[in-house]
Amino acid sequence: MALPRLALVPGEPAGVGPELCVRAAQRAWNAGLVAYGDAASLVNAARRLGLPLQLLPPDPAGARPGQLPLVEIPHPAACAPGAPDPRNAVTVVEALTRAADACQAGDCDGLVTGPVHKATINLGGIAYTGTTELLAQHAGREVVMMLANDIVRVALATTHLPLREVADAITPALLERVLRIVHAAMRTDFGIAEPRIAVLGLNPHAGECGHLGREELEVIEPVLARLRAEGFDLPGPLPADTAFLPSKLRGFDAVLAMYHDQGLPVLKYSGFEHAVNLTLGLPYPRVAVDHGTAFDLAGTGRADPSSLFAAIDTCTRLAGRRREA
Amino acid sequence: MALPRLALVPGEPAGVGPELCVRAAQRAWNAGLVAYGDAASLVNAARRLGLPLQLLPPDPAGARPGQLPLVEIPHPAACAPGAPDPRNAVTVVEALTRAADACQAGDCDGLVTGPVHKATINLGGIAYTGTTELLAQHAGREVVMMLANDIVRVALATTHLPLREVADAITPALLERVLRIVHAAMRTDFGIAEPRIAVLGLNPHAGECGHLGREELEVIEPVLARLRAEGFDLPGPLPADTAFLPSKLRGFDAVLAMYHDQGLPVLKYSGFEHAVNLTLGLPYPRVAVDHGTAFDLAGTGRADPSSLFAAIDTCTRLAGRRREA
Repeated sequence: MALPRLALVPGEPAGVGPELCVRAAQRAWNAGLVAYGDAASLVNAARRLGLPLQLLPPDPAGARPGQLPLVEIPHPAACAPGAPDPRNAVTVVEALTRAADACQAGDCDGLVTGPVHKATINLGGIAYTGTTELLAQHAGREVVMMLANDIVRVALATTHLPLREVADAITPALLERVLRIVHAAMRTDFGIAEPRIAVLGLNPHAGECGHLGREELEVIEPVLARLRAEGFDLPGPLPADTAFLPSKLRGFDAVLAMYHDQGLPVLKYSGFEHAVNLTLGLPYPRVAVDHGTAFDLAGTGRADPSSLFAAIDTCTRLAGRRREA
Repeated sequence: MALPRLALVPGEPAGVGPELCVRAAQRAWNAGLVAYGDAASLVNAARRLGLPLQLLPPDPAGARPGQLPLVEIPHPAACAPGAPDPRNAVTVVEALTRAADACQAGDCDGLVTGPVHKATINLGGIAYTGTTELLAQHAGREVVMMLANDIVRVALATTHLPLREVADAITPALLERVLRIVHAAMRTDFGIAEPRIAVLGLNPHAGECGHLGREELEVIEPVLARLRAEGFDLPGPLPADTAFLPSKLRGFDAVLAMYHDQGLPVLKYSGFEHAVNLTLGLPYPRVAVDHGTAFDLAGTGRADPSSLFAAIDTCTRLAGRRREA
């Protein structure tokens, strides 16, 4: 069987995305990579790194290390590392949506994305809250963000929400949709037939029987009971501080955190370099780096490609499983 | 100089506290231990463990391993491991307050406490939200809870509060008082002349310049600016997910989290066994175990004494520093 084809989007051209893609192009992967983006920013990044880079027409068959097939989407404004230009916002987003189209059409088997800079895209006149949200809207799907490394997979019931809005956002309907998406992705993408998904409480000590908040009793437990009746394996609601003990984590295939800062500190502490950001619920696997544009590192050659490499490896495995399914 | 004298309170007699204290009594410490509690539950725990235990009058001078000086506070109801009896609530609390009195009077140099069971104390007719709160009220002091292991020290701006109440609880006045207490304790108790205390944001990404919540701009930053003008070294407000990266942690003497589940998952993940719970702001050092009564383990002999041992060691160091000061 041919290798899976992965669409690779460098993201913000003034960030570390282009140079990380150049580093990825130096290696052989168990996937064929097709970049979607601007030729000049890739070529300039390669020159700065002193690495070979030959851009090819967008067919990965036969591409060797040092070569990168490219669907060219030229950016109108040249920009130096660390100095993003809002005039490139439209084409940065276009690279994402064209890569997504290729995945939705079956021309590619998965999508790997570098970091995009939220403020620059918005300054360029495009309302943009994040690539995850953009891809969800483009596909007309509800999605769940999951961060994963070798130690733990953390899915988030809510993501980029002010803390004071979190409690009201956790409704039974949301929680049920999120758990169904995570459960389906564990089966389809991770090949786990009966996934065990630990569900954290919203309040400290998971509410301590209602003494420290009632959302566990009134919102979370009823949803868990309903889904357990369908056969879901859902330990919880668990106190967040002890759910991540290494001895407990080993028993879970994933952890569902109720909000951003409840789930991500442990994930990043336990293995930031190899962490990736997955979007569950899309019609194709999508894996992103778990870091930002790192403008301070862009152009220095010191940006660590570990997260992009892990994203490519993870997306390759996920795409392979979907093709076998 | 004589060794510091530490008051040691086993806590709930049906939990693992008594057996952990028996294990502590088998060792030589750089402190003299004086237990405050019930003789029968200690003797029974020693018998179950098959360990020697000779209870002495409450003077630690000359006590050897296998001996434990005790201020006897008999519990009215005998109870089996795992089966707490609310009739003991009054004397469980009395053991804590008498040990606190000894510390406040200078008869002891520090307080080490085992786990107490919140529900049992309340069932016994005493309004009790936690030992930290009890000791604060008893001393008439405002205190800050800090959890610490070999990797990180995490202080909490709020503790056992439902998540939906956290944002409103973080006022400028609270934050300033908390930071002054943490700063003073870092100097007095930890001997760090110019402590560097990282302050987390309240919202994901520390609010991302106001896009994800405005408390960083309107509450946290003004307080930090005021205290920095007095010479405090306060990096922040920092995004919680990346503040705990090992490379960043090494630069901080402590981290102030805004709430329970933002700060404690990493602490427990990174070293639960050796974690201890400190109360900053009391007129004496107080260190507690970082675990509960573990009714399921009580009486089995399998309870791990590491946290109690770490609490004794930590309290010894803190008491020594206060005596030198």
